[in-house]
Amino acid sequence: MFQAYYLLESRGLVRAVPRSGYFVAARPSDALLPEPQTSQPRSGSQPVEINDLIYACLGSARARNIVPFGSAFLSPTLFPLDRLRRALVSSMRRLDPWHMAEDLPPGNLQLKREIAKRYLRQGFAVATDEIVLTHGAMEALNLCLNAVARPGDAVVVESPTFYVALQALQRLGLRAIEVQTHVREGIDLGRLAQVIELHRPKACWLMTTFQNPLGSLMPEAKKRDLVALLARYDLPLIEDDVYSELYEGNIAPLPAKAFDHRGLVLHCSSFSKCLAPGYRVGWATPGRFTHDVERLKLSTSLSGSIPVQAALAGYLQEGGYDRHLRSLRQSLQAQRDSLFDAVTRHFPDGTRLARPAGGYFVWVELPGGVDAMALHRAALAQRISLAPGPMFSARAAFQHHIRLTCGQPWDATRERAMRTLARMVVDAPCPGASAQPPL
Amino acid sequence: MFQAYYLLESRGLVRAVPRSGYFVAARPSDALLPEPQTSQPRSGSQPVEINDLIYACLGSARARNIVPFGSAFLSPTLFPLDRLRRALVSSMRRLDPWHMAEDLPPGNLQLKREIAKRYLRQGFAVATDEIVLTHGAMEALNLCLNAVARPGDAVVVESPTFYVALQALQRLGLRAIEVQTHVREGIDLGRLAQVIELHRPKACWLMTTFQNPLGSLMPEAKKRDLVALLARYDLPLIEDDVYSELYEGNIAPLPAKAFDHRGLVLHCSSFSKCLAPGYRVGWATPGRFTHDVERLKLSTSLSGSIPVQAALAGYLQEGGYDRHLRSLRQSLQAQRDSLFDAVTRHFPDGTRLARPAGGYFVWVELPGGVDAMALHRAALAQRISLAPGPMFSARAAFQHHIRLTCGQPWDATRERAMRTLARMVVDAPCPGASAQPPL
Repeated sequence: MFQAYYLLESRGLVRAVPRSGYFVAARPSDALLPEPQTSQPRSGSQPVEINDLIYACLGSARARNIVPFGSAFLSPTLFPLDRLRRALVSSMRRLDPWHMAEDLPPGNLQLKREIAKRYLRQGFAVATDEIVLTHGAMEALNLCLNAVARPGDAVVVESPTFYVALQALQRLGLRAIEVQTHVREGIDLGRLAQVIELHRPKACWLMTTFQNPLGSLMPEAKKRDLVALLARYDLPLIEDDVYSELYEGNIAPLPAKAFDHRGLVLHCSSFSKCLAPGYRVGWATPGRFTHDVERLKLSTSLSGSIPVQAALAGYLQEGGYDRHLRSLRQSLQAQRDSLFDAVTRHFPDGTRLARPAGGYFVWVELPGGVDAMALHRAALAQRISLAPGPMFSARAAFQHHIRLTCGQPWDATRERAMRTLARMVVDAPCPGASAQPPL
Repeated sequence: MFQAYYLLESRGLVRAVPRSGYFVAARPSDALLPEPQTSQPRSGSQPVEINDLIYACLGSARARNIVPFGSAFLSPTLFPLDRLRRALVSSMRRLDPWHMAEDLPPGNLQLKREIAKRYLRQGFAVATDEIVLTHGAMEALNLCLNAVARPGDAVVVESPTFYVALQALQRLGLRAIEVQTHVREGIDLGRLAQVIELHRPKACWLMTTFQNPLGSLMPEAKKRDLVALLARYDLPLIEDDVYSELYEGNIAPLPAKAFDHRGLVLHCSSFSKCLAPGYRVGWATPGRFTHDVERLKLSTSLSGSIPVQAALAGYLQEGGYDRHLRSLRQSLQAQRDSLFDAVTRHFPDGTRLARPAGGYFVWVELPGGVDAMALHRAALAQRISLAPGPMFSARAAFQHHIRLTCGQPWDATRERAMRTLARMVVDAPCPGASAQPPL
């Protein structure tokens, strides 16, 4: 029954409102905005120098009393903070003090077992020995990148790509090869194959499921093809998979890791996006690079924080996680739909809008070459944050794109902010109304 | 009164036994072992390739039911784990869920204030804005090193040096310049000045207080001179200061940071050695490099774990920390003395023994060129761990040295293990009884 609604909803015919039900959407489906065009990055690798821009945008978005369309975080109200707190308290009561020292450095074994169980329920096995617990997915990703590439090496990323990948590349002195990425289906495999032949990168860093910022979900068959392509060149894939629990419908998307038999996929995930943002507990399953990643972990931060690991292990053992995830998925779907709907109703003709089937980011291509950086500054002055497109490219591309976050329950404040934002887009000076794809 | 005992004790005339009092030591002071000789590393920088040896030693020392003279950790019984647990529970009760997201990424402000207060009570001011919370001191040290040196740069370290410094240098592709370091007074400033002139290093990484493994404590005047020397060359100092709370007597040694007016000292410390090992909470105060270290933190692991930061802030506000530290210092002093005493009684003539006035590491120079790696392997077979000297040098020097840890209350098991170890030293084949200083 819900599936039918999901279908109608995905076509824009109905709209879900939390705790209320489904309503017929404000506009019929033929009024849907077209989706953003695929970028055409020029071939070649380049050094990354983007930190200043990224930090300026992130810093300004942290101000108080702001409507956080630029945030990377979900509302704390979406998480089971009380139950987590109880799990923390009761795990601390049970925790043998000797464990406190023994768990350093390998980390809480029970938590690793719970993570391994979740892989298994998705249909593929990962040994607990392959799980390296980290301080959030960000540390996992950084350690994995450090394990497979040396300064000067080139690494393939998506175009647009998550700015944390660009920061990691910059810090490690790596070169970025940006490859065109479809707003629904992810990176272009034909182009990827060419790039591998031409530039011999040392690794790929991709988000195959609900990519940040596009929201693209690579279909399963394409993930298989991706893994086969990597195997042909013995090329490691760092798979950033933090959003895969936030899917629509009933079937969890598999990661590329599920199809990897050569140990080439370094899968990274965390509990920060869907359970416990402030706990900073993530992990990597680095395949044949596990030993290297473990060593890097040991010599950069030794070990994770034992109390929070024990708390998460306790929470997972109690078994309420899947119930929480179902409820979170429903909330996010409603929030996404509200945002789709608001952009569709308020933004002017010429706007292009991605409609991802999961996650909480929405990628918008602005009409007629509206400058995203100028919009970002103007919006901040009105206490509205957004993530301007140039944050997502080593070439400062996507100058007419923004990423919006639907991380909080929709309300009148958000609706009003969206109208304000739309008005700014309408009023923006247009330095040549180009309809060309983003370079 | 205690001071008089401390003095007698430091001269080996009395010995403290926990919860019992002071006893006259087994041997009079004239039987004290001489102290280890100062190394004479050859001039010049060199790449670091020591990871395999370090990991092999660390890995083997983690086995169960071992007498952990090779451990870097204190016994969990020395920490106020129950009070910490209560602080964690009550801070979780008070924690506003919104803080959970707002504290990301800068970390718990209250904890920063408590740390700033402790600097102030030592007699110098550090702004809360200069405090970067990290996952233990190890992350702090790594981020600081990353902020001041680029691949190929040379960095000054002590000889012998803490192996984590060597691992960090290796990972970042840096070259090590090992400078001779006195067993009581720390690095040789004359030699340091020469080395700076000759090799133009980009940074120093030093433990000025209770150096690991020597236990050396640089006198205050020497710390001032060190800071003046660095200022002359505008050379940053990464000051690893995790043991300074573990002093003897009543006066806490000041770090070099206290004398720095140019923002050149990146001071790193943590709660892992003296309060909460499993929590993994540390910090850096990186002087003029604060902005860079903050950025590196943001892009490598985003933020610390909010619950454990809040717990430590709560614990510190309650005010029992100094009482705990006094009791910990007393325990460690007794444990150090028991170890000094056991080595003095059991080890053969020709043994040289450092007698640090703080911390929990004891550096031993073995007689007649006994091979530390062979001893390490033989001891492990008897379920006794130790840290062989070559772990502490990029040149695999200190082949006749070991570091012993007195991290646990002394008992019959430890006494027996020390006798076993001493017998192995006596029985070891001596390939040329050299009395030369370590190269």
